Amino acid sequence: METGTMVCYTEHLTVKTERRYEIRDITDDVERVRSAASLRDGYILVSTMHITSSIFVNDHESGLWQDIMAWLEDLAPRKPDYRHHLTGEDNADAHLKRMLLGHQVLVPVTDSALDLGPWERVHYGEFDGQRPKRILFKAMGIGG
Amino acid sequence: METGTMVCYTEHLTVKTERRYEIRDITDDVERVRSAASLRDGYILVSTMHITSSIFVNDHESGLWQDIMAWLEDLAPRKPDYRHHLTGEDNADAHLKRMLLGHQVLVPVTDSALDLGPWERVHYGEFDGQRPKRILFKAMGIGG
Amino acid sequence: METGTMVCYTEHLTVKTERRYEIRDITDDVERVRSAASLRDGYILVSTMHITSSIFVNDHESGLWQDIMAWLEDLAPRKPDYRHHLTGEDNADAHLKRMLLGHQVLVPVTDSALDLGPWERVHYGEFDGQRPKRILFKAMGIGG
Repeated sequence: METGTMVCYTEHLTVKTERRYEIRDITDDVERVRSAASLRDGYILVSTMHITSSIFVNDHESGLWQDIMAWLEDLAPRKPDYRHHLTGEDNADAHLKRMLLGHQVLVPVTDSALDLGPWERVHYGEFDGQRPKRILFKAMGIGG
Repeated sequence: METGTMVCYTEHLTVKTERRYEIRDITDDVERVRSAASLRDGYILVSTMHITSSIFVNDHESGLWQDIMAWLEDLAPRKPDYRHHLTGEDNADAHLKRMLLGHQVLVPVTDSALDLGPWERVHYGEFDGQRPKRILFKAMGIGG
Repeated sequence: METGTMVCYTEHLTVKTERRYEIRDITDDVERVRSAASLRDGYILVSTMHITSSIFVNDHESGLWQDIMAWLEDLAPRKPDYRHHLTGEDNADAHLKRMLLGHQVLVPVTDSALDLGPWERVHYGEFDGQRPKRILFKAMGIGG
């Protein structure tokens, strides 16, 4: 059991991918935020602020990343005939793909370190990229 | 970095949709809870207390809402031959649909405001409605 | 509104399923952690530390569990031709299945009890079992 004064610390990170669809490992950013927050025990919320991208935890393995993208395209294909496109948009598939992977994760922190399993890595999944997007990090817990 | 005394504040909201399947924007309820909690920095958990509905973040756009409902029906169709229906229920599709969108979100609060991107809106997704259901809101963080 | 000193409490539980694919109700473990933490108000994060398993909330009903497993196999089938298998692995389907159900939930605690709806139960979903896996529980909030 740990007790102490509560601390909250927030960062907004801007990312811009080179491709429309892209997966990026952002675990080092989560650790950087933990360190900046001097968080000893608690949570770090990692949440995309855009509705056409995801935050998810999975393996850092490029073959699996390709499997994930192909699988998302099977389940939520890019195609013209979405009703959302009547507004002039062309990215309805991105709104659906992002829900399959989720838009946020809560990273646990214990003993001043990310409390992740050996293969757990935090990823950003972009489905409508090539423009600036923001990711929110909010650490909450007991300071160091 | 913000520090202070921890506050927790909880509300349970009852909703009853007119239709069996319905999407509703509940972002104003989240802001109302933030204000009632005088939360300056922290999280608000929004979680449906029923296993046939969802809480998710996406665009407030009625065409997209129709796309989402049609897509869920493709991936988790309403049909008679689920094993769950041997119990007398007829809503197995709702149990599956709700998992595709998720059942809870954590809304970040910074500087006494919901820290959402420009198009992020919190939604309630109902897949077995026309009866009272409850949504839990729990704010946790530093008070105002 | 509740105020008080913040407490954090963490446990790591090891599970080993008998079968490769299995669903297990772990709600009693969540309550045990709440009690050990003397948590009066707050959250308990339940998060699998492995990338081939899930934590999700749904009904404790064996017919539905079978529906869920059959449905996951439809949407993310076990098959040889994933790129991830070029690494020597054979479990790419497990990496995908786990994302459909999600890998963590945040259980609210109010008045020293899990604040769950009448049918909400916390489940562990295993898609590559028969070996030791760890689940993290982290309680955060106001102590009793």
